[in-house]
Amino acid sequence: MTRALLRGYAGARMETERIWTAALVVIGDEILSGRTQDKNVAQIAQWLNVQGIRLVEVRVVADREEAIVEAVNTLRARNDYLFTTGGIGPTHDDITVDAIAAALGLGVVHHPQAVAVLERYYATRGGASEARLRMARVPEGAELIENRMSGAPGIRIGNVFIMAGVPHITAGMLDSLTGTLQGGRPVVSRQIGCWVAESEIADLLRDAERSHPGVAIGSYPFFREGRTGANFVIRSPDEAAVDACIADLTTALEEAGHKVFAAGI
Amino acid sequence: MTRALLRGYAGARMETERIWTAALVVIGDEILSGRTQDKNVAQIAQWLNVQGIRLVEVRVVADREEAIVEAVNTLRARNDYLFTTGGIGPTHDDITVDAIAAALGLGVVHHPQAVAVLERYYATRGGASEARLRMARVPEGAELIENRMSGAPGIRIGNVFIMAGVPHITAGMLDSLTGTLQGGRPVVSRQIGCWVAESEIADLLRDAERSHPGVAIGSYPFFREGRTGANFVIRSPDEAAVDACIADLTTALEEAGHKVFAAGI
Repeated sequence: MTRALLRGYAGARMETERIWTAALVVIGDEILSGRTQDKNVAQIAQWLNVQGIRLVEVRVVADREEAIVEAVNTLRARNDYLFTTGGIGPTHDDITVDAIAAALGLGVVHHPQAVAVLERYYATRGGASEARLRMARVPEGAELIENRMSGAPGIRIGNVFIMAGVPHITAGMLDSLTGTLQGGRPVVSRQIGCWVAESEIADLLRDAERSHPGVAIGSYPFFREGRTGANFVIRSPDEAAVDACIADLTTALEEAGHKVFAAGI
Repeated sequence: MTRALLRGYAGARMETERIWTAALVVIGDEILSGRTQDKNVAQIAQWLNVQGIRLVEVRVVADREEAIVEAVNTLRARNDYLFTTGGIGPTHDDITVDAIAAALGLGVVHHPQAVAVLERYYATRGGASEARLRMARVPEGAELIENRMSGAPGIRIGNVFIMAGVPHITAGMLDSLTGTLQGGRPVVSRQIGCWVAESEIADLLRDAERSHPGVAIGSYPFFREGRTGANFVIRSPDEAAVDACIADLTTALEEAGHKVFAAGI
């Protein structure tokens, strides 16, 4: 339903509201092979919503330099922020820093503060070996993102944010970035639900969206307890518009004989 | 670690082994907003592995025609197969069929067999309304993919496979495609594990990969029961090469004083 969201946003932009966008590149063969279930897309999307930044595109690429370079260069150019997850550990398959440095045309250096962090972290864990100090390597000119969970920090270079692949480490890095990125009004998202086949009320949904510019309605059917139902997600940066759309949609659904559950089903 | 996998595959190709590739476009605002946790990437990746086809790139795009067209046209051109999930329901936010028809420069028609399927399915469910018959619309010249779970079928047009977004419906569609797509030798993937920080044995892993051309080793650290460990995934289409690599790696790890768990930890 982003057509409508963009329609709405375009309208909002004319009233000088700027939409801040982000893209995410998930780096890792383990996601593409199906070995590992990604958790970072949903986690980063939800965190960005709160920062008033909209996640508009995700790519999952292999641990292969050309694939990373292509995705990073395309997406950083057309978004305010670009995040990556994965490939920043100490082993041979961790090539994210080198690939992003290549994408940006930069050299790779050991960041003195990252070296200090790792030396401190590994002082009681067997010492900071050469392999471990690989995790202090950054594209030239980069800043660090604090890692509150383990030793190796994340990295910021320009509008590119290089994060861990392990979700709880990424979570700690996001935490330390909270409130530091410029964004717009967060999108308000509310949900209502009905025990109805979405195909029965498709026209009604379309009409409700059309009569509320700037509001997008998503329809998400489900099958549960042997019955068909659907939740409807109403989204806009304009909270009053969301409320008005929900009120009208609720009336229309109830007039059509469908009981509406105000928080979804 | 795909560098090595590709190195290996390149070697294998010289022995006339062709690698079949697929890409996936996940279509849906609900994934990009973080509302819904995607399950289709892992599901389709695992299914493709069994067909001897390798998933090499995934993009998640919004319910927006330009975004779908860009992703579909880029990825179908450079892969043997392109799958999409999401956006084939009856409501206004379901634009996948129109977007893919636009990407291919084709018109959209009601597929007579899909109309018949939907009329039969909805005969006892309130009838096949116009909204429901939207789900019979396909790009001109398309074939249907059987939906064993609910009414609306999937769609095949050229090398593009249009699947449902709801994971259990996608699963049924994959099931009906099983064995119908040409692929190569499936990649054999095995895992061993150690209670060791991966940074301690990074050199050993690199050496093991280097001395087994065509084999890729992925290293996946974890923190569990208060201890640090890592699993190592060894992959190749050549099963004997996987076994040989595991034997050498196990010896090297045990010589370095680390007990190896043969099935991972």
